[in-house]
Amino acid sequence: MIYDITQLLEKMRAEKPLVHHITNYVTVNDCANVTLGIGASPIMADSFGEAADIAGISKALVLNIGTLNERTVPSMLSAGEAANACGVPVVFDPVGAGASGFRNETAALILDTIKISVLRGNISEIRYLSGLSSKTKGVDAADSDLSAQDDVAAVTSSAAKKHGCVVAVTGAVDVISDGKRVLRIANGHPMLSALTGTGCMCSSLIGSFCGVAPNDPLTACAAALLVMGISGELAYERAGAVGNGSFRVALHDAVSRMDAEILTGRAKLYEA
Amino acid sequence: MIYDITQLLEKMRAEKPLVHHITNYVTVNDCANVTLGIGASPIMADSFGEAADIAGISKALVLNIGTLNERTVPSMLSAGEAANACGVPVVFDPVGAGASGFRNETAALILDTIKISVLRGNISEIRYLSGLSSKTKGVDAADSDLSAQDDVAAVTSSAAKKHGCVVAVTGAVDVISDGKRVLRIANGHPMLSALTGTGCMCSSLIGSFCGVAPNDPLTACAAALLVMGISGELAYERAGAVGNGSFRVALHDAVSRMDAEILTGRAKLYEA
Amino acid sequence: MIYDITQLLEKMRAEKPLVHHITNYVTVNDCANVTLGIGASPIMADSFGEAADIAGISKALVLNIGTLNERTVPSMLSAGEAANACGVPVVFDPVGAGASGFRNETAALILDTIKISVLRGNISEIRYLSGLSSKTKGVDAADSDLSAQDDVAAVTSSAAKKHGCVVAVTGAVDVISDGKRVLRIANGHPMLSALTGTGCMCSSLIGSFCGVAPNDPLTACAAALLVMGISGELAYERAGAVGNGSFRVALHDAVSRMDAEILTGRAKLYEA
Repeated sequence: MIYDITQLLEKMRAEKPLVHHITNYVTVNDCANVTLGIGASPIMADSFGEAADIAGISKALVLNIGTLNERTVPSMLSAGEAANACGVPVVFDPVGAGASGFRNETAALILDTIKISVLRGNISEIRYLSGLSSKTKGVDAADSDLSAQDDVAAVTSSAAKKHGCVVAVTGAVDVISDGKRVLRIANGHPMLSALTGTGCMCSSLIGSFCGVAPNDPLTACAAALLVMGISGELAYERAGAVGNGSFRVALHDAVSRMDAEILTGRAKLYEA
Repeated sequence: MIYDITQLLEKMRAEKPLVHHITNYVTVNDCANVTLGIGASPIMADSFGEAADIAGISKALVLNIGTLNERTVPSMLSAGEAANACGVPVVFDPVGAGASGFRNETAALILDTIKISVLRGNISEIRYLSGLSSKTKGVDAADSDLSAQDDVAAVTSSAAKKHGCVVAVTGAVDVISDGKRVLRIANGHPMLSALTGTGCMCSSLIGSFCGVAPNDPLTACAAALLVMGISGELAYERAGAVGNGSFRVALHDAVSRMDAEILTGRAKLYEA
Repeated sequence: MIYDITQLLEKMRAEKPLVHHITNYVTVNDCANVTLGIGASPIMADSFGEAADIAGISKALVLNIGTLNERTVPSMLSAGEAANACGVPVVFDPVGAGASGFRNETAALILDTIKISVLRGNISEIRYLSGLSSKTKGVDAADSDLSAQDDVAAVTSSAAKKHGCVVAVTGAVDVISDGKRVLRIANGHPMLSALTGTGCMCSSLIGSFCGVAPNDPLTACAAALLVMGISGELAYERAGAVGNGSFRVALHDAVSRMDAEILTGRAKLYEA
């Protein structure tokens, strides 16, 4: 599988797929920069007047409800419908699902209305969207939801079946499933959770890889989470002891310098 | 007092209080990252449909009018009322008060409607909100308002009495008052004003410390401004000569590496 | 001409002109920090309730449609009209013109309604606004539009005549024209296009220089693009090999440390 992933990375840098984001204003700059860093081309366009037009000319659409509001939710639906009509893969990041009625209703509306290729969240968000008990604490996973790894695999696989898409639960070990296969990625570093937006950046990278592998969201998702996990390790090794600011810079450096050799050498991807 | 502050920092890292922000989109990423850096958990949620819900599950609420608009002002009021009802401390950062009628009316509305725990601004903003002459220049303090230090103490103390809350005026020397006591913090570096968002980051740190000291906003405020001032000094020593970009990275590093020893060793906190 | 530009830089750092931005939320933080870095004072204010007031007290106004929406377009028009009424120069950055009907209509509306001092874009955007064929790909220039340099000069000069303002097309070589003179700046580095917001930062720097040279937008524009191009070179020399994150930090460092000696020593400004 790694071989395919390195090919996807080459394809990305050759094709520079346009990745449309309707995302939050907290981490949007990091999302744009990792999208560019991995080789894709980001565009952020959230007005109702153009969301569908932009989705239609893009290679992937990322919907992220981190700072959703009454103006942007209709734009998300409009962009999602246009993406579906044009065969553009849609990545959905249900930031903070479980934390408020508005987030919950919006997440349900998006999942009901739009055909999603990849749903990525933390364990609290995915548990909530699976109808399981969830103790979400804002936008970070609740400690009580950080359950055993086998449990995460069961939740992920079950959510994939329920929603009919690839589901990725990112955490200490990332778990990805399309409802049949279950992949685990053991790369990454705890310091990634000390920085805002690393989850959002994962979703942007998933969108980027979906842009060059629209019919293989499972592999696209694995590629993206390997890039992020390995970049987190490299950033920690270089700058972890210095502090959050340096770690962030090193993380962007690592994403932009990712290549086949690093990917192949460091990937800890397992199928269970 | 320093001893209490080091305890607050330990408490923060143990409890990771959720800090709700309705803030501007210019510096929001820095606000999220200093909140994480000091050990709290940020959530930014500005839609009217969830502002009250999120405020109600948070340990502190930060309202910042840096890029206020017709959509977010009602959200701020709704969040503020929910916070008041739940006993959640509210920090108010009246960015640019004095610069436009809309900012002035909104600041007055928030101060009239919401019980504020800490009001933090520059001298121009606090002078304006005290009914004193103020020559605000956009979002930075006007040179003509950078008056003598004793005058700042008088303005701060008087504003605290007028608004019935702790008031912090940040500048070359930070002054904090609850209307009775006046504290001065002589940490910091002029380069902090060469970077956007350092005032907003102070407000986020105040919110974070209020999240673990809801009944002692004066100490929470002192803790936050010590962290920022000392971090500014450390950042300047390490990276000041290199430029604004490196200084910013070093500032985030210093906040995330702050500990009891650094705090105790470098604090310049005086009661007058 | 370089001599005038170094004087403009000194004037900027002495006068700290207030530069009002209505801009996108993706790169707004970088825009604020380069504005501060070069010595001006940024304010971002996009609500209809204050856009005109803030424009009226500013020394320059930057309109950037990167994430335009139904709420902010009327604010842009209101701010632009107030700026025109007060003689405040207006810089317009038509991000993504050609990519959607909403962007196209808004760009036309701004150009028809507001007197612009400087229009800055990539070749795809400026070709589109000149009524030429354009293959815009989101917010980045399309490869097929990256035509020969003489062609860019003709497009730039013709757009300047058509719109009655200074036009700057940034790219491998920047071309600036007021419809009579054509200037070329051969500074810069390809890595600038691997980072989000470098075009927006150019527009912020143009706004900053217009704030101290309101009657000479051609020189202001040349000064700004020299600062950005030279800063890109310095950043690449120092950090290009490390990655995008380090390059970005080094870019901000270089802008903030720009001085007359660096400008004079490295400028590659030609009049053709």
